[in-house]
Amino acid sequence: MSLTLHGFFRSSAAFRVRIALNLKGLPHEQVSVNLFAGAQHEPAYRAINPQGIVPSLVDGDAVLNQSLAILEYLEERFPQPPLLPTDAAARARVRAMALNVACEIHPLASLKPQSYLEREFGASQAQRDDWARYWMGRGFEAFEARLAGHPQTGSFCHGDTPTFADLCLVPQMFNARLLQLDLSPYPTMVRIEQSCLALPAFEQALPANQPDAV
Amino acid sequence: MSLTLHGFFRSSAAFRVRIALNLKGLPHEQVSVNLFAGAQHEPAYRAINPQGIVPSLVDGDAVLNQSLAILEYLEERFPQPPLLPTDAAARARVRAMALNVACEIHPLASLKPQSYLEREFGASQAQRDDWARYWMGRGFEAFEARLAGHPQTGSFCHGDTPTFADLCLVPQMFNARLLQLDLSPYPTMVRIEQSCLALPAFEQALPANQPDAV
Repeated sequence: MSLTLHGFFRSSAAFRVRIALNLKGLPHEQVSVNLFAGAQHEPAYRAINPQGIVPSLVDGDAVLNQSLAILEYLEERFPQPPLLPTDAAARARVRAMALNVACEIHPLASLKPQSYLEREFGASQAQRDDWARYWMGRGFEAFEARLAGHPQTGSFCHGDTPTFADLCLVPQMFNARLLQLDLSPYPTMVRIEQSCLALPAFEQALPANQPDAV
Repeated sequence: MSLTLHGFFRSSAAFRVRIALNLKGLPHEQVSVNLFAGAQHEPAYRAINPQGIVPSLVDGDAVLNQSLAILEYLEERFPQPPLLPTDAAARARVRAMALNVACEIHPLASLKPQSYLEREFGASQAQRDDWARYWMGRGFEAFEARLAGHPQTGSFCHGDTPTFADLCLVPQMFNARLLQLDLSPYPTMVRIEQSCLALPAFEQALPANQPDAV
């Protein structure tokens, strides 16, 4: 087995995969793709991923991308410890929370649409930040509603061990803090984030703890 | 078994689930949530889905949402015919294509960000359409690149039977045609769309063929 993660310390999608690799105790090499310098568009990385997005996970001959597809792959190939529950409806609950972040918050709050706003509508930095906070806020309301008072919410998003939902939650909370989003309306998310960061697998995956952090 | 799909003829996320139910031959009831009239925010639907988004699939006591989570649930509960390949790397390829649509195209091209653009930046209808076409175009370039020349691309996105990737592709192509996106740069996608629409399961899931179509 030889796993190589091509990522970047500030990529929240790579952050999700780092946590999974740590939780499953999988030895892996990390290759930094400097998104700040546009390295994702250079031939060296395009050979790995023609689309020029991170993360990519290379496992022997297999080159994988899209962080949630990578999480599913890791779960199938290396089932222990499980990051999805066993019951089908519970698995759907966890996946819905993960998709809540990956489909509803992250794409809108990310830098790409902000660049479009600047280019086509002359959006200021304050307007770009407002845009990102708006989508985070709407998504967080939905995420908090999924958690609060639900009988399957535990010390983590689903029960008392981490799942895909937590792997998506923590990086998104990190981004929200960067943008100084008011987190007081989301007490369950804040509590679960604390449970997660108490685990070395999460803490070691934090952007500041990566070798390419600047 | 009693399955009820809460959706809307024009929802492309509901469209994905309709195709899956048809391919698996699962009898189900459809309940229309009229998004044009704001029915997703009314108490009757909020009782099913507090977030007010479609689709939701009700299976006995389980209330599921997020279309890709629903697809995974259906695959686990009703494995035949399979909509994912068996090999882990192949499953990751299919899921990455599905996520390419669900995370990179649909959230940005959808109506919600367009409403924000209109409200906060005074975007005209033409500017809103340009925005949607821009994100579709970028996403389609990536999707076509995943397909073209790949040894596992067949008459469908992966091999010669439909998978999650096709279930996401066809609704997104439908939306692209509504916006008159030039599809000539994406010949593989157009060819696969034709393979899909030749199957009754896809054809019967088209918006125009739903009882609530207007």
